[in-house]
Amino acid sequence: MAGTTAQPTSRTRSWWGWGWTDAHPDDAECVAMGALLPGTLARPLPVPRIRDLGIGAPAVAPPPSLAHVLTADPRDRAAHARGKAYRDVVRALRGRPGRVPDLVARPTDDREVADLLDWAGERGIAVVPYGGGSSVTGGVEYRGDAHRAVLSLDLTAMGRVLEVDTAGRAARIQAGTLGPSLEDQLRPYGLTLRHFPQSFEFSTLGGWLATRAGGHYATGRTHIDDFVQSLRVVTPAGTNDSWRLPASGAGPSPDRLFLGSEGALGIITEAWVRLQARPRHKASAAVAFADFGRALEAVRALAQCDLAPANCRLLDAGEAAMAGAAHDGHAVLVLGFESADGPVTDRLRGAVDLARSYGGRPGDGGEDGAGAGGGSGDAAVGAWRSAFLRMPYLRDGLVRMGAVAETFETAATWDRIPALIDAVRTEVGAAALGATGHPAIVNCRLTHVYPDGAAPYFTVLAGGREGDEVALWDDLKAVAGEVLHRHRATITHHHAVGRDHRPFYDRQRPEPFALALRAAKGALDPRGILNPGVLVD
Amino acid sequence: MAGTTAQPTSRTRSWWGWGWTDAHPDDAECVAMGALLPGTLARPLPVPRIRDLGIGAPAVAPPPSLAHVLTADPRDRAAHARGKAYRDVVRALRGRPGRVPDLVARPTDDREVADLLDWAGERGIAVVPYGGGSSVTGGVEYRGDAHRAVLSLDLTAMGRVLEVDTAGRAARIQAGTLGPSLEDQLRPYGLTLRHFPQSFEFSTLGGWLATRAGGHYATGRTHIDDFVQSLRVVTPAGTNDSWRLPASGAGPSPDRLFLGSEGALGIITEAWVRLQARPRHKASAAVAFADFGRALEAVRALAQCDLAPANCRLLDAGEAAMAGAAHDGHAVLVLGFESADGPVTDRLRGAVDLARSYGGRPGDGGEDGAGAGGGSGDAAVGAWRSAFLRMPYLRDGLVRMGAVAETFETAATWDRIPALIDAVRTEVGAAALGATGHPAIVNCRLTHVYPDGAAPYFTVLAGGREGDEVALWDDLKAVAGEVLHRHRATITHHHAVGRDHRPFYDRQRPEPFALALRAAKGALDPRGILNPGVLVD
Repeated sequence: MAGTTAQPTSRTRSWWGWGWTDAHPDDAECVAMGALLPGTLARPLPVPRIRDLGIGAPAVAPPPSLAHVLTADPRDRAAHARGKAYRDVVRALRGRPGRVPDLVARPTDDREVADLLDWAGERGIAVVPYGGGSSVTGGVEYRGDAHRAVLSLDLTAMGRVLEVDTAGRAARIQAGTLGPSLEDQLRPYGLTLRHFPQSFEFSTLGGWLATRAGGHYATGRTHIDDFVQSLRVVTPAGTNDSWRLPASGAGPSPDRLFLGSEGALGIITEAWVRLQARPRHKASAAVAFADFGRALEAVRALAQCDLAPANCRLLDAGEAAMAGAAHDGHAVLVLGFESADGPVTDRLRGAVDLARSYGGRPGDGGEDGAGAGGGSGDAAVGAWRSAFLRMPYLRDGLVRMGAVAETFETAATWDRIPALIDAVRTEVGAAALGATGHPAIVNCRLTHVYPDGAAPYFTVLAGGREGDEVALWDDLKAVAGEVLHRHRATITHHHAVGRDHRPFYDRQRPEPFALALRAAKGALDPRGILNPGVLVD
Repeated sequence: MAGTTAQPTSRTRSWWGWGWTDAHPDDAECVAMGALLPGTLARPLPVPRIRDLGIGAPAVAPPPSLAHVLTADPRDRAAHARGKAYRDVVRALRGRPGRVPDLVARPTDDREVADLLDWAGERGIAVVPYGGGSSVTGGVEYRGDAHRAVLSLDLTAMGRVLEVDTAGRAARIQAGTLGPSLEDQLRPYGLTLRHFPQSFEFSTLGGWLATRAGGHYATGRTHIDDFVQSLRVVTPAGTNDSWRLPASGAGPSPDRLFLGSEGALGIITEAWVRLQARPRHKASAAVAFADFGRALEAVRALAQCDLAPANCRLLDAGEAAMAGAAHDGHAVLVLGFESADGPVTDRLRGAVDLARSYGGRPGDGGEDGAGAGGGSGDAAVGAWRSAFLRMPYLRDGLVRMGAVAETFETAATWDRIPALIDAVRTEVGAAALGATGHPAIVNCRLTHVYPDGAAPYFTVLAGGREGDEVALWDDLKAVAGEVLHRHRATITHHHAVGRDHRPFYDRQRPEPFALALRAAKGALDPRGILNPGVLVD
């Protein structure tokens, strides 16, 4: 088992940064990016070698009965020590791996998961569930020293689609299935889960469920929560199997307790999820706005009408420029429609007309290029899409140049959106300038729109403070969290809570609910071994 | 306060049966209905007088500080003793009120709700929350004798829309607001909650939330769960105020723990809910099917395409005949479309065409009559709508004639629907025949359709077993519950669990979730005063 996964590839995953090693910007690209930001380094930080990290012997030995699913390989342990936040990447680059897991487990079925939990419970070993490892909130990192050893429970050896109900459009899928493999296995049936978070390539169904992930679609069914028919969750108190149902009013939803539980209540091992027919008709367009406030009104109107765009992303001027979607100081609205049933050009036209009534200017070829069979009708749309998937790699390049590169997201009702965005720009920008002495870039896009609100996503880029990156990031994160809290914007729309957002989550969460959650945790995980430090203590 | 409500009307609510006293069928109508069913009585059972019910003095006196919101009026106590299931109505008619609440409280704000809970907690008094009293599952009825007294907590004095956010289409509404009053208060803003359960006139927002009610729309947003921005819940452990958010991924949803909690975890006192623009365009049609199996395939196809009908109700031949929608042995599909944005005739035509491809035959004038401005395009649609709202009154008339009249509903995935419906017809029909000696009518309609399943709703009518109605009903209910359970169909899609469904709920609910829920209850209601016997012990 060691060093392999059930979903093999010829490419190598980076142990310290995002994605594939062969997709990372090289040193020359890093230097070029760094030159765009004042206060960065002259040369990129080198990537340390695993053998220089000082990873010691594990504090616990695998029991013979489970040895076949456990490994103490140092590269595996280093790769499983953390997620992929700026905070994680910079510590890896600085050769500070912190407390790495003593062992990495790759169980292949529920029985092995249960056995691992039993063993860990008896020995007081912390169990940190691990899907694709894409957490940017400290969700897969053990902190503290209350446990004698730490086990990283990697689910990716459970990566199969087990059953497909084509008539009822649903599938039973193992939690460790990574996005591309999941879609590959569904493709022969003409079906799709159609859930595409930015981390799609490097995240799993189980991770999406445990963190209440948001897909990349702007409206309609985009939260993984709404795709769940039933869950199987292995807990120290037994296995929780909910019934496969299209709907039910029988008490509080059992599944909704485990959705978003981030590994603190149990290990999600499989789910029946709702599928859709693969879309055959696509059309997209970009619309430019000189006035961001008017653009906000346009997307609200789009979210409140019948049109239901698949994409309805509003990029502010800075974001549009960075994505190559516009360079003239305009905000850009990226619109996309999809259907398995029939052409969507009428709906696209309706959306563009609506945007125009708010002062939007459709891009060259935007509307005309739209048609059945899909593809982008506008260069701006294509530019934005490419940039979207490349962004985490570029972030790592900037980190190697000593820059601070942080993203965070939230959601709030429409009445709060304009002031919230202004406050984040102003206050986080000022904090970055004060802390680094360099002007910061603070960009915003709306990633999801709802009839009653929106989800703004922020990117903060600034020159760094060499050797003090983690403290700097923590300070900026605290400022950002305070701004969100003051504007009653959630601490996370789709990035999860993890350990990094925990202080603000505790302040957002109603106290009686905290009491109930703590009690539920005590009942399901009486020894407190499941992802300690996450959600409740 | 005593004897009044915050939402006054000149009409009088029945204390023993459904709805308004002036809408009940008179004795002659009862006799006419009874004649249609073998084994009924010659004359309707009389309605007992309150003073003949033997309601004694309350076991506890109101404390002076709360006397202004408490009443011991016998009619109030009798009316609050039970919901409106067949089981409840027949016991009332037989003059067996059982244990009536000692006091009825009508608090006017959260402070009074909290004070009532404090007082009840100190005295060991059970608190049974009461909205519109439309429960058909024993949800508002105290059973047993573990508490020294019982308080019915009627929320209808908290019946106001407190704030409306027109731009963000949301409102803050008190939980005791009854359906018609809620819509009346929203109408000046051009907005609607658009949640119309069959009980609409006699149920409250708080009741919908506490029971996870289903609205009358067939597809899309129909469950009250999806309309919730935030909840305020007064618990013995403090007040739970969630943030008003369009979406959040911060841990398990706090609101989803209280949705469906049926008063066992706290008293929902208000909610921010999502609203919609009032639909201006409507079109409807009826399509007849000779083959019920093909009709099932048609509705599945309709649920899986983009058309999103507001109504997509499939009535089997018996149901269609009873509703006056068809008398030729055909099943009838009632289709309806609505929009605030523009005409829906194209969507209706698309749906009718799709139904036709499965052997459906559109009714006379069905398609042609559809048009902007609304109204029924088909007599069958209108007949069905009228019958729908009148059904609970007719049920009470049949009960007075000694008939068994029961309805229950469920939901299951498409693969299970045909066998499930067959089994209910066969097994519940046989049980009714065996128990009464009279042939029973068992009709079915699909009330809600989903891409992955449907919600069948069953009506069972049979001659009775005089003087033994409750035991007969309990037996039939047990047979029905077993059939549902064996087919992995939920014990309730929208009627809630209450006390009547509790044994089957316990078998459906995953055991680890039961542990978690019990622990949550212990944390929020340590004295066990909230709706004892519901969901957990």
